[in-house]
Amino acid sequence: MPGTTSLFIPGPTNVPHAVRQAIDCAMEDQRAPDLPAFTLPLYEDVKKVFKSAQGQVFVFPASGTGGWEAAITNTLSPGDKVLASRFGQFSHLWIDLCERHALDVEIVDVPWGEGTPVETYAERLAADTAGKIKAVLVCHNETATGVTSDVAAVRKLLDDLDHPALLLVDGVSSIASIDFRMDEWGVDIAVSGSQKGFMLPAGMAILCVSEKALAARREARLHRCYFDFEDMIKTNDGGFFPYTPPLHMLRGLRASVDLLLGEGLENIFARHHRLAEGVRRAVSAWGLDLCAKEPKWYSDTVSAIKVPDGFDGNAIVKLAYLRYGLSFGLGLSEVAGKVFRIGHLGDLNEIMLLSGLSGAEMAMRDMGLPIEAGSGVAAAQEYYRATAKPVDFSRELALAV
Amino acid sequence: MPGTTSLFIPGPTNVPHAVRQAIDCAMEDQRAPDLPAFTLPLYEDVKKVFKSAQGQVFVFPASGTGGWEAAITNTLSPGDKVLASRFGQFSHLWIDLCERHALDVEIVDVPWGEGTPVETYAERLAADTAGKIKAVLVCHNETATGVTSDVAAVRKLLDDLDHPALLLVDGVSSIASIDFRMDEWGVDIAVSGSQKGFMLPAGMAILCVSEKALAARREARLHRCYFDFEDMIKTNDGGFFPYTPPLHMLRGLRASVDLLLGEGLENIFARHHRLAEGVRRAVSAWGLDLCAKEPKWYSDTVSAIKVPDGFDGNAIVKLAYLRYGLSFGLGLSEVAGKVFRIGHLGDLNEIMLLSGLSGAEMAMRDMGLPIEAGSGVAAAQEYYRATAKPVDFSRELALAV
Amino acid sequence: MPGTTSLFIPGPTNVPHAVRQAIDCAMEDQRAPDLPAFTLPLYEDVKKVFKSAQGQVFVFPASGTGGWEAAITNTLSPGDKVLASRFGQFSHLWIDLCERHALDVEIVDVPWGEGTPVETYAERLAADTAGKIKAVLVCHNETATGVTSDVAAVRKLLDDLDHPALLLVDGVSSIASIDFRMDEWGVDIAVSGSQKGFMLPAGMAILCVSEKALAARREARLHRCYFDFEDMIKTNDGGFFPYTPPLHMLRGLRASVDLLLGEGLENIFARHHRLAEGVRRAVSAWGLDLCAKEPKWYSDTVSAIKVPDGFDGNAIVKLAYLRYGLSFGLGLSEVAGKVFRIGHLGDLNEIMLLSGLSGAEMAMRDMGLPIEAGSGVAAAQEYYRATAKPVDFSRELALAV
Amino acid sequence: MPGTTSLFIPGPTNVPHAVRQAIDCAMEDQRAPDLPAFTLPLYEDVKKVFKSAQGQVFVFPASGTGGWEAAITNTLSPGDKVLASRFGQFSHLWIDLCERHALDVEIVDVPWGEGTPVETYAERLAADTAGKIKAVLVCHNETATGVTSDVAAVRKLLDDLDHPALLLVDGVSSIASIDFRMDEWGVDIAVSGSQKGFMLPAGMAILCVSEKALAARREARLHRCYFDFEDMIKTNDGGFFPYTPPLHMLRGLRASVDLLLGEGLENIFARHHRLAEGVRRAVSAWGLDLCAKEPKWYSDTVSAIKVPDGFDGNAIVKLAYLRYGLSFGLGLSEVAGKVFRIGHLGDLNEIMLLSGLSGAEMAMRDMGLPIEAGSGVAAAQEYYRATAKPVDFSRELALAV
Repeated sequence: MPGTTSLFIPGPTNVPHAVRQAIDCAMEDQRAPDLPAFTLPLYEDVKKVFKSAQGQVFVFPASGTGGWEAAITNTLSPGDKVLASRFGQFSHLWIDLCERHALDVEIVDVPWGEGTPVETYAERLAADTAGKIKAVLVCHNETATGVTSDVAAVRKLLDDLDHPALLLVDGVSSIASIDFRMDEWGVDIAVSGSQKGFMLPAGMAILCVSEKALAARREARLHRCYFDFEDMIKTNDGGFFPYTPPLHMLRGLRASVDLLLGEGLENIFARHHRLAEGVRRAVSAWGLDLCAKEPKWYSDTVSAIKVPDGFDGNAIVKLAYLRYGLSFGLGLSEVAGKVFRIGHLGDLNEIMLLSGLSGAEMAMRDMGLPIEAGSGVAAAQEYYRATAKPVDFSRELALAV
Repeated sequence: MPGTTSLFIPGPTNVPHAVRQAIDCAMEDQRAPDLPAFTLPLYEDVKKVFKSAQGQVFVFPASGTGGWEAAITNTLSPGDKVLASRFGQFSHLWIDLCERHALDVEIVDVPWGEGTPVETYAERLAADTAGKIKAVLVCHNETATGVTSDVAAVRKLLDDLDHPALLLVDGVSSIASIDFRMDEWGVDIAVSGSQKGFMLPAGMAILCVSEKALAARREARLHRCYFDFEDMIKTNDGGFFPYTPPLHMLRGLRASVDLLLGEGLENIFARHHRLAEGVRRAVSAWGLDLCAKEPKWYSDTVSAIKVPDGFDGNAIVKLAYLRYGLSFGLGLSEVAGKVFRIGHLGDLNEIMLLSGLSGAEMAMRDMGLPIEAGSGVAAAQEYYRATAKPVDFSRELALAV
Repeated sequence: MPGTTSLFIPGPTNVPHAVRQAIDCAMEDQRAPDLPAFTLPLYEDVKKVFKSAQGQVFVFPASGTGGWEAAITNTLSPGDKVLASRFGQFSHLWIDLCERHALDVEIVDVPWGEGTPVETYAERLAADTAGKIKAVLVCHNETATGVTSDVAAVRKLLDDLDHPALLLVDGVSSIASIDFRMDEWGVDIAVSGSQKGFMLPAGMAILCVSEKALAARREARLHRCYFDFEDMIKTNDGGFFPYTPPLHMLRGLRASVDLLLGEGLENIFARHHRLAEGVRRAVSAWGLDLCAKEPKWYSDTVSAIKVPDGFDGNAIVKLAYLRYGLSFGLGLSEVAGKVFRIGHLGDLNEIMLLSGLSGAEMAMRDMGLPIEAGSGVAAAQEYYRATAKPVDFSRELALAV
Repeated sequence: MPGTTSLFIPGPTNVPHAVRQAIDCAMEDQRAPDLPAFTLPLYEDVKKVFKSAQGQVFVFPASGTGGWEAAITNTLSPGDKVLASRFGQFSHLWIDLCERHALDVEIVDVPWGEGTPVETYAERLAADTAGKIKAVLVCHNETATGVTSDVAAVRKLLDDLDHPALLLVDGVSSIASIDFRMDEWGVDIAVSGSQKGFMLPAGMAILCVSEKALAARREARLHRCYFDFEDMIKTNDGGFFPYTPPLHMLRGLRASVDLLLGEGLENIFARHHRLAEGVRRAVSAWGLDLCAKEPKWYSDTVSAIKVPDGFDGNAIVKLAYLRYGLSFGLGLSEVAGKVFRIGHLGDLNEIMLLSGLSGAEMAMRDMGLPIEAGSGVAAAQEYYRATAKPVDFSRELALAV
């Protein structure tokens, strides 16, 4: 197919040119004497992306799922009780992983389209006077439904109740894209992956871990070796690794973190909000609804769009891919066929996103949805125009390279 | 600026990934014994892109301007008369080059927005009973105005008059994108460049030369060395070069020609027509006119769009670049400010083009043009939907890699 | 430092240009409908590299250590007895991993420089009349000492004793470089990694698993989720994945496997033997000894060279890196300082290796070792000349591209 | 063929990774408003490589041959007399180019292996009391024979005689590798190419032109358009171009110039001298002679090595290529078969070069030359060891990235 295809899935996201070039490096010796001069500052800078000064960063050659596993095996013991809520495919999978590691998961099911039920959590934690709940899980951004949860609120109730449970957060599709504050929110472990806001290919689980969670490893009796924090600490502290690291990916991470800190986290969050809001304007112009039930749940990294009864969201995704070379996100599990998803995170701007909205319009019309051609695009255009950063043409040119 | 910028200028065009990778090769010895096994088949295949079986291909490390110079210095002598028409910046520049090489150019000026005036050519050639006109120049696709000329018609009148003049054609922005037939149209020299339909970076002038034009080098007394066909023939025939060739670009050319012949020239022409027609539908929906005065002149590789009085086309281009990261073509020379240009050639598909149309709408509205948001995009969408190749989903998947 | 640096460590190895380019791809949707058309044939072809028709391939985003973990957690239960031998850092680490997963490891320590003690294994297995030993571990190629073990012999004694233990093999630094025969040797799980013979960056554990080992997962009670074969099987069988796969690495694996099968496994083994033998000739010319005690243990992928008393092998490695831009392998653990290692595996030829031997000579002489300049290089040169494939110049050229 | 092939020809030279990555960029608009912010500083920095503050830089999409043509067509008129010496294939070709542009070349033939005959030049210029000689040509580094001429001496005699002739220098295989001083030596036009010391692929002629030579364009009546300084000046001064520039190559040039100025010209010259001297030590150890007759002619970028009677230098080159994947330089024209050449310029270090010397030894021995295995390598090793920059290990590590 001539031309480029376009990716509007909620990860993997587009890898910026500078990051791709950094990854495309010659292989190197993971025991070279000057490697720490590369790795130590890198790990320090990755912490900034988590907004953490206190935490310790771990990078495992793994997917985000591996990050979930690292989070629990290093802090918990068989039979430990954890509190978790299920409202989408990814919050479900983390629960499943816990159960397969013999944890006792107290599951709070809420309708898909809502997020972490802070009030229910409050009840359960308040009831846990014996302190049986060792960890509270929060899926910060449920990728399957486009729902963002309120991590700070969970922290607050733990503090209010003076509950000692660890706060473990899945930030795979939020960190480096939308507001996340490791230290301020008192997150104990934040799990992220390389292939979303970090704008890298898949293959690295990136975690930030609080001192409290680190200390928990001493009592945690779940088996672990590959994902053991201890082995990492022993070698990482000197700038090295317990086993062969994917140095090409770490070179890419260096470039990615340079881009992230160069743009500025607050600017990145604002950009993602602006891009997302344009999509929401388009959805509204189409006369459709989001899966996320209320604005407070709206995710700025992914929108799950409900298709009208009688239509198949997954067929739209398939048609868009085969006919127009566009990748949108399928509806998964409980919402399979009922939604299709537009990912709007990572290395993205409004012009790229408008091509995706155009393609979505075409695919929906091809499938017979009663959508007006150009309507969503026009709504998004107008929003983007109104919110475009004014360009001081003369100054811009003077600064340009 | 996050995300990719987009190029809608009429060249350089986007370089396909496979071509970029082919260019990114290790340097190699231009005198290696196995080089002919690479170069000889390559040159044969390049001829196919010109639709020539009889011609000989020359590749100079140069821009298209160098190709113009090669065309005349190898075939003409100081004081020779050539017939040429001027209707845009690029037809103008070739004439200028001829004059600086001491040729006597009989210039036929026609309004910008029209193309080669076949009837006037006929008159001039008919009047040239003494055969003073040694060459007739045709700018197949005037990039500045988006006008395509009728080369076959010029051939026909030369044949009808039995006039011996060489037919020299500037196909820089047409060849490998829109219909061009070297042998069938009796073109004596076709000049192309790497950075348009060949989808390569700038840096190579690619010519196809008829036997008649080759024979003319024996009498041609214009000085030449760098661009001398003779030196090329002596070495190219064995698969080598008279001076260091840009082998990385030739490796890229191999990849490009593989893509072109793989897609099929007729499919490429059809794709360019479809893409162009979508743009024209958008222009019409905006209530604007093309610079090209009549449909018969419409170019399928570039559209020059007239902006209403009181607006500055070049300001639109500048704003689109600085605010939205989009490159459109400036109006040049006589039409500076009066038009802006959308290039729609090379490695392009409808989704990419729709992002350009969205950006054009935004930039025009930002500048105050009375354009309805989404109108052009909607018109193009509908055209593209109506003309999309039907996808047999099951078969498509079976074939896919 | 101008010019390229050179890597003579036993992994990561040089990534061939074609593989690097395959990795450097645009991100893609891991749920695209045409993905199975890519993944299913790939997995089939990876099996060929293991010389397996019966086995099933698993690819985890992980290092080789993750592969070890996958091998045991999917087949064993807490308290299970496994038989293993320790004769280097890597055989040690796998044992350590087993112990941390609550396995009861019967360790056979042998001097570093020897390999798997087949006779001792025979005794232990013969004594295990109750069938307590559930698995036998073999480190096929101990990277720390340059020692290759006889896997076939271990298979034979299991067969001779009719012992039901699984045969689990660490082939990280052997597979795709030296002779390995999954099916013929009755290996139950072979663990490899991307960064050695597969000539990819680190980041993928690649396993081949027998039906018998697969069946064992049903009884195996070690916790697992990330490395669970079951989840992989459910999705891999349709061409998909249980979590986001590193598709760029799989694209690279496709290119790598194409190169491996294109060159031919037997040719690859022969090339590695020839390259290694040249190094051994050089070592001998230097008057030095290998860590491997006998020729039967000699590894064709890495040579650990003993430095004379009073010299520090690690200082040689450090000097070679800092002064000449060359990476050799450090001596690890018990042999730290006593050896330095030359890796000679992967995408390598004799000319590259001669530069490493030159650099080793320079570094050793810089450190004061009584080595004659050029002696090792000359010995290797002569061996390589004597064993160079004769070139039929005319035919070679005719075939060349 | 597994592994990388190696290039020891005197150009094209290896392109550094950073330069290759800079070249591998997305296409961009050559009329973008911010382009001058890139081009203007670049051109200023290129001047530094020529050691010129007064000159003006021109970059043509062309080979070095195009640079020769630009040099004469912009400064001379048909029939003008130029003084030139011929002592190799490249000095010959420039003379030939002059003659084909109707210049009257006063040729001084000297034996191949010597350089510009300053005394004969002095005689000819002294005899030219009428000032008929409009330009003096010097081939600074004759690539065919490995001979470097004394440009400063030619300047001195022009000054001593107060002769107004322009001093035109071919620095294609010298500039950015060995000492060259545009302003100090009063060079009027220095011609270079991208594919030698600039470490780029072929495709750009890079010139530096004095004010005096620029002024000469006003009287120069040789036809020119593609290579016209005037058109370049008009557009370059604003940061733009008269025709589509190869921007990818200019992006590469930026990276190359950054590397050159980062390493420092004097360091580069010293490195090239050291590398060359190691090769000369090897040649001496082999018992062979250079084509360059005296040390004063020795080139630090290329060594042409005479093969003993009865042997064919070109067969050595061919064998090295086909059997060992090594590219050496063929003997050209008058010295075809009598020499083979080792290029040692550009992005190179001693370890890389030692692999070339090893390969040369093997190829020569394969062809039956009476060369002792390892002898040249040993001699070069010892020289490189003795001249290696001492490494302060602790400091080096602290600074490393």
